[in-house]
Amino acid sequence: MWILRINMSDLSTKLEAVPEDYKLLYGRALTSKMILDEVPPLCHALGPKNKLVFSAGIVTSSSAPTSARLSVGSKSPLTGGIKESNVGSAWGPDLASMLVRALVVEGMPEKNDVYWGAYIKWDAEKAEPVVEFFDATEYTGQDVYDIYPKMFEKFGDKVSIASMGTAGEFGYGNAGIVFNDMARRPSRYAGRGGLGSVLASKRLKFIILNDKGAPGITMVDKALFDEGRKKMIDAIRSHPISKPKGGLNSYGTAVLVNILNEAGGLPTRNFSSGRYEGAAKTSGEAIFETNKERMGKEIYNHACSPGCIIQCSNTLYNEDKSELTSCIEYESTWALGANLGIDNLDDIGLMVQLCNAYGLDTIETGGSLGVAMDGGLLPFGDSKGAIKLIEEMGKGTGTGRSLGGGVEVTGKIYGVRRVPAVKGQGMPAYEPRAVKGIGITYATTTMGADHTAGYTICPEILGVSGKLDPLSPEGKAALSRAFQATTAFIDSCGHCLFIAFPILDIAAGFEGMVQECNGVLGTSWTADDVVAYGAQVLKWERQFNEAAGISKEMDRLPEFFSTDPLPPHNQVFDIPEAALDSVFGEM
Amino acid sequence: MWILRINMSDLSTKLEAVPEDYKLLYGRALTSKMILDEVPPLCHALGPKNKLVFSAGIVTSSSAPTSARLSVGSKSPLTGGIKESNVGSAWGPDLASMLVRALVVEGMPEKNDVYWGAYIKWDAEKAEPVVEFFDATEYTGQDVYDIYPKMFEKFGDKVSIASMGTAGEFGYGNAGIVFNDMARRPSRYAGRGGLGSVLASKRLKFIILNDKGAPGITMVDKALFDEGRKKMIDAIRSHPISKPKGGLNSYGTAVLVNILNEAGGLPTRNFSSGRYEGAAKTSGEAIFETNKERMGKEIYNHACSPGCIIQCSNTLYNEDKSELTSCIEYESTWALGANLGIDNLDDIGLMVQLCNAYGLDTIETGGSLGVAMDGGLLPFGDSKGAIKLIEEMGKGTGTGRSLGGGVEVTGKIYGVRRVPAVKGQGMPAYEPRAVKGIGITYATTTMGADHTAGYTICPEILGVSGKLDPLSPEGKAALSRAFQATTAFIDSCGHCLFIAFPILDIAAGFEGMVQECNGVLGTSWTADDVVAYGAQVLKWERQFNEAAGISKEMDRLPEFFSTDPLPPHNQVFDIPEAALDSVFGEM
Repeated sequence: MWILRINMSDLSTKLEAVPEDYKLLYGRALTSKMILDEVPPLCHALGPKNKLVFSAGIVTSSSAPTSARLSVGSKSPLTGGIKESNVGSAWGPDLASMLVRALVVEGMPEKNDVYWGAYIKWDAEKAEPVVEFFDATEYTGQDVYDIYPKMFEKFGDKVSIASMGTAGEFGYGNAGIVFNDMARRPSRYAGRGGLGSVLASKRLKFIILNDKGAPGITMVDKALFDEGRKKMIDAIRSHPISKPKGGLNSYGTAVLVNILNEAGGLPTRNFSSGRYEGAAKTSGEAIFETNKERMGKEIYNHACSPGCIIQCSNTLYNEDKSELTSCIEYESTWALGANLGIDNLDDIGLMVQLCNAYGLDTIETGGSLGVAMDGGLLPFGDSKGAIKLIEEMGKGTGTGRSLGGGVEVTGKIYGVRRVPAVKGQGMPAYEPRAVKGIGITYATTTMGADHTAGYTICPEILGVSGKLDPLSPEGKAALSRAFQATTAFIDSCGHCLFIAFPILDIAAGFEGMVQECNGVLGTSWTADDVVAYGAQVLKWERQFNEAAGISKEMDRLPEFFSTDPLPPHNQVFDIPEAALDSVFGEM
Repeated sequence: MWILRINMSDLSTKLEAVPEDYKLLYGRALTSKMILDEVPPLCHALGPKNKLVFSAGIVTSSSAPTSARLSVGSKSPLTGGIKESNVGSAWGPDLASMLVRALVVEGMPEKNDVYWGAYIKWDAEKAEPVVEFFDATEYTGQDVYDIYPKMFEKFGDKVSIASMGTAGEFGYGNAGIVFNDMARRPSRYAGRGGLGSVLASKRLKFIILNDKGAPGITMVDKALFDEGRKKMIDAIRSHPISKPKGGLNSYGTAVLVNILNEAGGLPTRNFSSGRYEGAAKTSGEAIFETNKERMGKEIYNHACSPGCIIQCSNTLYNEDKSELTSCIEYESTWALGANLGIDNLDDIGLMVQLCNAYGLDTIETGGSLGVAMDGGLLPFGDSKGAIKLIEEMGKGTGTGRSLGGGVEVTGKIYGVRRVPAVKGQGMPAYEPRAVKGIGITYATTTMGADHTAGYTICPEILGVSGKLDPLSPEGKAALSRAFQATTAFIDSCGHCLFIAFPILDIAAGFEGMVQECNGVLGTSWTADDVVAYGAQVLKWERQFNEAAGISKEMDRLPEFFSTDPLPPHNQVFDIPEAALDSVFGEM
């Protein structure tokens, strides 16, 4: 496999052998290590010294189920620290199948007048991937739903496309990188951390992959891989959350709305309550029922990417049976729903669609709007006003710009004290005062407030891998540490994080994941080894952040979580600082 | 002397004896120590746990010349670190003469519906200061030039007033605290660091002092003080920069425009050049000549505060002989002039007046506009557009809000790479690539980019206290360290920083300063002692910042200073990181 470098300073490309040091690094492990090795931690995130590293996971592009994940690494313009943003789409498998272990986008043109597209295809004669550039300037300033069809027309229906919307072109801290789903919708996002702006700063509007004729990845021990794969499939298919017509397949990730609301942990009206009276109307069940009524039948969810057998990606249909948007994740329906005091599902769907169209991260956008509502820009519950503001963000008006910098920046602009962000990144849909472990993850992860970095919701709320009291601080630092390390491995192996539900409850599933990786790599890792692998990734990320000036004093939640009790439990976030420090201190 | 506390949570006040530990602490030394002792470093700057501490200097309210300075300390909403913002006005002497060593504003009302005024007067019977509160809600949302006359009408012409403009009410990071000058103009600002927003967050619209009948400060050794005072007066009156009809008295601080432009160190068009073709039109000499032409006579500058014999505060008059604004400082004519490519003096004057009217820091405002111009919001040189944007800032429109967060936040919103800020604070009017020592001060001071924290311009540009090559990096870390420590003492003694010009060149002047302080306090400090005092202040500030998560990795200039050569010298900022670290490392 190779490292393929695209240098935007002179549109040159380079194919390098994967160095010995990186031999076992894939996905997040590789993106984080390369960012640590190659990007000056104090460089400007939108400057020529920052880089974007794309790497698929160990088993990505194999027949392992639900494993089409891609890591995108960079220095984040939102947090100023390291970032790994993870996405499921065909793009990751296509990159891996062309034997590109890492695609590195580096440099920056001196002049800003042209945006480029990079078309990467497999050259059968040379037996290597080749890059062609094209002038993509004419596709800027537009809705991504308008420009993706033009690219499919230009390069054929089988290609996979990465791009960014106007949010990235404006340099917003909340701009994601967009990838197409299996129905060619530009709707799958490496959303967090503003990486769409990094890509735009390189003046690279598109990265289009065509893996036709590419050889695909090889395996050292196919039989072992197959043994692991079978265990993984069995685990996924038998767990109530991940099985066909199970929680995720029926209601999508939005199945969590009612669960978190019940637990008093659904952040409502900019984190002023943990329970929302309109929650049920914005839930996965409501989406399912709305579709059933409008389409005249039960509609189960679809795969966002090839080979997924969980299939949690939903679509919300209009009354006329046309699509309103796909997909409404839990985070999105919360960020633009409960968080804003909005319970109109169609309005939420439209906001999600607008975020996709402009290339905005839904979590950061909803968070910013919540803070702006708290600051008096518009009242909570004003869904029409919120829609208008998202449109302004996409168009780059002054007011739109004032919201594009993300939750923390919005707090500064609107003079708000209740600003739910850590290390500059807005907080996702779990209230740390009601679910203590996830608060520890928010505070300590290298990524800024990020639920996926150590999803302690499993035992705290879902009863997966045991059952813990979400309101208790006891043992939660160790819990978060274990989840963070394991997650860093999962983000490197290429499986979707949702395999965590089955593999944490079904030991054979975890074993299967390790066997799949050993089969591909020829390693003989144990379960302990993969957790140690994840911990090493976290240490590299931490090393980058420290050099970027993000000290351990930043491993804290904003003050209001420890001073303002949250209804309905009237709890504050009461994890001692020593416990927060122990997450990395004892790793 | 007392510490007077105003608790805005319940409108209670408390008069405490000055603790033994604080016996020798005044001005910046006291505000910084009290912020370190009392404010949780990670609290929200606009939350109930932040405090504002007002303290005048050691000799303030005495007959020491040019010593009517006040320190305002707090955790800064702009930098997230400690802040001392320093201002000359009658307010500081009035506070000291009522024997209030420190006025502490703390707490915060639970409800946001009322703004209060605090009227502090000397109660002759009780022989102590007393505080009366009044409802000041009706004075919010207005131009400070409209509300100050109403306060003078209400409380009499002799009072001194502190307040903030709409910028503070909106919670902007660039909102200052405004004080009246001797002609009762609301034009003297503790401008930097967003402290106007902290005051507004406490819902305290006015702090009005009436020192009628107050005893004034006492001295341990009046004869020694008088001896020192005489030396100080002699030094000020004989130095070419500070003497009557000398540089400052004739041309104001704006005398620096031509000097820095000549040196290639006048930041132009958002720090893209060190020389501005329109500089002369925006200089102190131009202000002097314009006034001469319009008023038909030479007009020398006036004192901003009682007892000043330097008298550098200017007024720009309109053609009809009415006042356009007072005063146009060097920093302001630069920030809104060369920095924006604007050379129309009347437009600059109007912008200064608008900044004053809305309570905006001119440096941060000009810096934000420069970054926004770089980001394409409007062209460089568009003075009418800039005026309109400042009006929008004052009115809080979306676009105005997008600029209110200061230079760094504006950079994030407009996706700009050339963002001249350190620790979140915008850079003043000296180019670090052309004047290396001041770059070290910007990088390392506890305050964020701040020229006043260690004004190495003296030897590097002005030939004061020797003459050093501004372009050379040699010895500049030690230079900045010495200036920073000495400055921290000057900021504590109550003299205006401009005494530095005479006392650095005239040994008797420095001696005079030390004698004045020894006379007041009964100490027997040497010159070394006062520098050590200053160094101790810096260490306290540093301690606060570290606990606030501002690590030494933040003691750096933005990347572009080391990568983009600056015309006309085509130099980069080439101070090694080890030298930057040595400023505090070897203190």
